[in-house]
Amino acid sequence: MNTTRRAAAFAAIIGAAGAKAAVAQTVPAPAAGGPVTLDRWGSFHVGGKEIVISGQPIREVLFTPGGVPARVDPNGTYLMGSMYAQYMIPAPLRGQAPMLLWHGGGLTGVTWESTPDGREGWQNFFLRRGWATYVADAVERGRAGWSMIPEQTGGSPILLTVDNPFERFRIGDGVGSFQRGTTYPGQQFPADRESYMNFVRQIVPRFTTTDALTQDAYAALLDRVGPSVVVAHSQAGLFGWRAAQDKPDKVRALVLVEPAAVGDPAKVAALKDVPVLMIYGDFIAQDPRWPTIRANGVRFAEAVRAAGGSVDVIDLPERGIRGNSHMVMMDRNSDVVAGVVQEWLAAKELWR
Amino acid sequence: MNTTRRAAAFAAIIGAAGAKAAVAQTVPAPAAGGPVTLDRWGSFHVGGKEIVISGQPIREVLFTPGGVPARVDPNGTYLMGSMYAQYMIPAPLRGQAPMLLWHGGGLTGVTWESTPDGREGWQNFFLRRGWATYVADAVERGRAGWSMIPEQTGGSPILLTVDNPFERFRIGDGVGSFQRGTTYPGQQFPADRESYMNFVRQIVPRFTTTDALTQDAYAALLDRVGPSVVVAHSQAGLFGWRAAQDKPDKVRALVLVEPAAVGDPAKVAALKDVPVLMIYGDFIAQDPRWPTIRANGVRFAEAVRAAGGSVDVIDLPERGIRGNSHMVMMDRNSDVVAGVVQEWLAAKELWR
Repeated sequence: MNTTRRAAAFAAIIGAAGAKAAVAQTVPAPAAGGPVTLDRWGSFHVGGKEIVISGQPIREVLFTPGGVPARVDPNGTYLMGSMYAQYMIPAPLRGQAPMLLWHGGGLTGVTWESTPDGREGWQNFFLRRGWATYVADAVERGRAGWSMIPEQTGGSPILLTVDNPFERFRIGDGVGSFQRGTTYPGQQFPADRESYMNFVRQIVPRFTTTDALTQDAYAALLDRVGPSVVVAHSQAGLFGWRAAQDKPDKVRALVLVEPAAVGDPAKVAALKDVPVLMIYGDFIAQDPRWPTIRANGVRFAEAVRAAGGSVDVIDLPERGIRGNSHMVMMDRNSDVVAGVVQEWLAAKELWR
Repeated sequence: MNTTRRAAAFAAIIGAAGAKAAVAQTVPAPAAGGPVTLDRWGSFHVGGKEIVISGQPIREVLFTPGGVPARVDPNGTYLMGSMYAQYMIPAPLRGQAPMLLWHGGGLTGVTWESTPDGREGWQNFFLRRGWATYVADAVERGRAGWSMIPEQTGGSPILLTVDNPFERFRIGDGVGSFQRGTTYPGQQFPADRESYMNFVRQIVPRFTTTDALTQDAYAALLDRVGPSVVVAHSQAGLFGWRAAQDKPDKVRALVLVEPAAVGDPAKVAALKDVPVLMIYGDFIAQDPRWPTIRANGVRFAEAVRAAGGSVDVIDLPERGIRGNSHMVMMDRNSDVVAGVVQEWLAAKELWR
């Protein structure tokens, strides 16, 4: 899409139609679980590389109205492709390895925090059970910063309309469902308008050309934190599989929640000592894309098993857990699904 | 700067020079302060408005390699201009109001978290003293997401080279100091290369055209959280002053750390019941811009006082606290300066 044309389109629309009023907010509910004790908490960035740019003109920039203009020389060295993680270490510690929470595409670590309807999310769930949690923002997203990536990759970011995830994440019942205001029957996502718009607020632009940078940054994260349980959602299924294949000694277990992609078929044997859990939600048969995505995942799991690995695939509806969207960790039964993960990790002796 | 030209410049440079190896990381130090108890913690987004775009072509997008292409229609309604906040509520609670931490330009809430050399930052400091802390990511930055802002505003983001903040934030001793590797004598910023590069990782692109959106989102944050102590750094000095002028009943006190701008001169009387503390670091006289920025701030403070308000201005060197850069909360004596803020808040009876 041409940026100038799009900018002109925007200007015209804003001039003509103006903007609607701000949407009302949800007040978060008090915690049902009571206080927790943190031994440590903090954040850091990891990874990234330096690149050099030259031949660009110097600019005078007024950063703040009423401030003093500053000279900005765009030539020089930039640091790009690093990522962010925030850790919270509870006491007592019961998880036998840190738990890394890797969000999906077009999203940030907020995925794992409070749900869009203000309940406690999976970060809270696992911290309360004694897991050291590390919530990551992948390269280009959230607090990782997107730095020079558009220029470097040549890609332009994908931005989602309000309707798109409603239809694509198996919340609404197909194309046009947001406009119709209809969901799959028994849907668990908090699809009231206020909650749904809170979810939309979490969405960030997505480049489709930064996978290698992201994979490198996740490798740096694993090197820094050490052997970990990796819980990865959607797009991060790709990064989770490949990180475990590249560094099987750094991944104690891999939990893939609705993974959108598989690992490297040439390296399935690398996964033989990494227990893997794959979880899929509901309404897959009705969706145009998810039957294929799930079938690819299950086929890859079979290849890993054939090479000596251990992969458990859970289709939630087969366990009587119905109505889950693609955003399982935000669904109204998010704690039930987290409980399935917790039980599996305990069975793998990763929690005592 | 022309995007296409810049992209071409990048491609040429990357092709020719390649990228240097990833920079080594700092392991965070264990907490010296011992465990803390959290009563609640979580996050939310607030604010934003809906805009409509039309007339753009539909695209097929392959979001994940090996995935299934999805149809993306860029026409429709977008939600933009919201912001993010993460709260941690300690027990026992000693702060008499929530403390909102507002970062400066080109940065995110990470400003207040662990320092670039791995010590506990101001969020830890104040949480440990019983303040409910709300760390915000302003519009366009971090987990707020930057959504359609470039198209809407017509602005292009400012990206900083590695050298720029070293020179502009009064760490190095002027232009060329990063290349020379020289700092102001007695400098408190952790300016070893590893720590400094960790700070650079925190920097995100900055639009200079989103002030009104940001101000609106901060207003929504204050409406949601209720009467608060606002601690604002640098660019957020603008937002802090104006938020207090617009909603004096929602700002119990305003702490401005190296504010880069002043409030509305026509509304100084609105601040008469909002106690204000302004803090400036060291090396201001040697800087080309900061003598003017500080003088503007002090003049505005005098106008607020003349209208019946209470503003305390602290130049840290006059208190014998020397060597502070613009990034006071990251300097090696960050706890000393936080202690000055804490003492002032206690004197205002906002902490018991």
